[in-house]
Amino acid sequence: MEQIVVPPREGRAVRVGAGQSLKIVTPHGSQAADFFAYNAADLDEWLSPMHTWVWTRSVRPRVGDVFLSRFRNPMAELVEDGAGGVHDMMIAACDQARYEQFGYEGHHASCSENLAKAMRALGHEVTVTPQPVNFFTNTRVDEEGRLLSPPNPVRPGAYVTVAARMDLVCVVSSCPFDLPVEGWTINAPGGPTELLLEVA
Amino acid sequence: MEQIVVPPREGRAVRVGAGQSLKIVTPHGSQAADFFAYNAADLDEWLSPMHTWVWTRSVRPRVGDVFLSRFRNPMAELVEDGAGGVHDMMIAACDQARYEQFGYEGHHASCSENLAKAMRALGHEVTVTPQPVNFFTNTRVDEEGRLLSPPNPVRPGAYVTVAARMDLVCVVSSCPFDLPVEGWTINAPGGPTELLLEVA
Repeated sequence: MEQIVVPPREGRAVRVGAGQSLKIVTPHGSQAADFFAYNAADLDEWLSPMHTWVWTRSVRPRVGDVFLSRFRNPMAELVEDGAGGVHDMMIAACDQARYEQFGYEGHHASCSENLAKAMRALGHEVTVTPQPVNFFTNTRVDEEGRLLSPPNPVRPGAYVTVAARMDLVCVVSSCPFDLPVEGWTINAPGGPTELLLEVA
Repeated sequence: MEQIVVPPREGRAVRVGAGQSLKIVTPHGSQAADFFAYNAADLDEWLSPMHTWVWTRSVRPRVGDVFLSRFRNPMAELVEDGAGGVHDMMIAACDQARYEQFGYEGHHASCSENLAKAMRALGHEVTVTPQPVNFFTNTRVDEEGRLLSPPNPVRPGAYVTVAARMDLVCVVSSCPFDLPVEGWTINAPGGPTELLLEVA
């Protein structure tokens, strides 16, 4: 079994072969894990929540749901959910522009940058940041269609396990979001914390 | 004023300059209009619902909401809604694979193909089908996060108007979806109908 620590606010790429599984753990709880996956044999094929949820008919992943690529091929299945279903697939990956949108000045770490860095280390340039699956993120859509992000209730040690249906390059980012935006709680109030990855 | 008819199951591209507006009409009602928009000066910058709704905090566009690009720049504002808010930004553009997913055999017209054709006619190759805004499409997310597509109530003559905040290339597709999928009503039961575009 391969174990990888994703330090707070950073990202890591990991290869997960078809039939292998990737476990993602938030040891301190309430830490959003932005999850991206690519077909290892064709990096133009990436996991797409929008193509997934029209098939699963659920905007949140549930055990047994299969994540599809933008070409609608099965990429991975959620096989274990030790976080009570508190996941999101709707929030775009944060990026420098997002932090500037909130008035932040200067460079801020972001999931988009973490993805680009992790893929670049493997020799791949990211030209399109895919929509991620955000594990351990609490998001709701109310009856009026409003998007809400209430406080994150995910307990320490919560985890998910996904089983690869094809050879994948996966990237997991410890979301660096730490701005005190009213009604938009992403991570724990104390700031971003590390994630653990296990490939088996 | 420029008027364009989008025939049933087809798509059309139209240039909309900054300060101009684009009106989209469903003369027969209940016809999904897949809407894509690109920065005319940089086709790598396209409208992104996922970047839009984290800012507007609404998964459905409302009058006054500004659609953002994937680089989080303002592209267009919804200035008139003559369809009672029945719009969707979550359903991925249909494509050949979507119809095959439902068991359809042979070629089927699709919004992705319509987009590619319309852009190709302008000399541009589409390598990534952006997530569209689907005007006149009835979609809901329930408390459990389930994605629902109840029957489409949009009346004949319903319309929306968007005002461009930058020079845009817009593509509108008369969604060709016509499969009798249980609980997944997109267009009117009689099949796809034309759309009207007015640039002023």
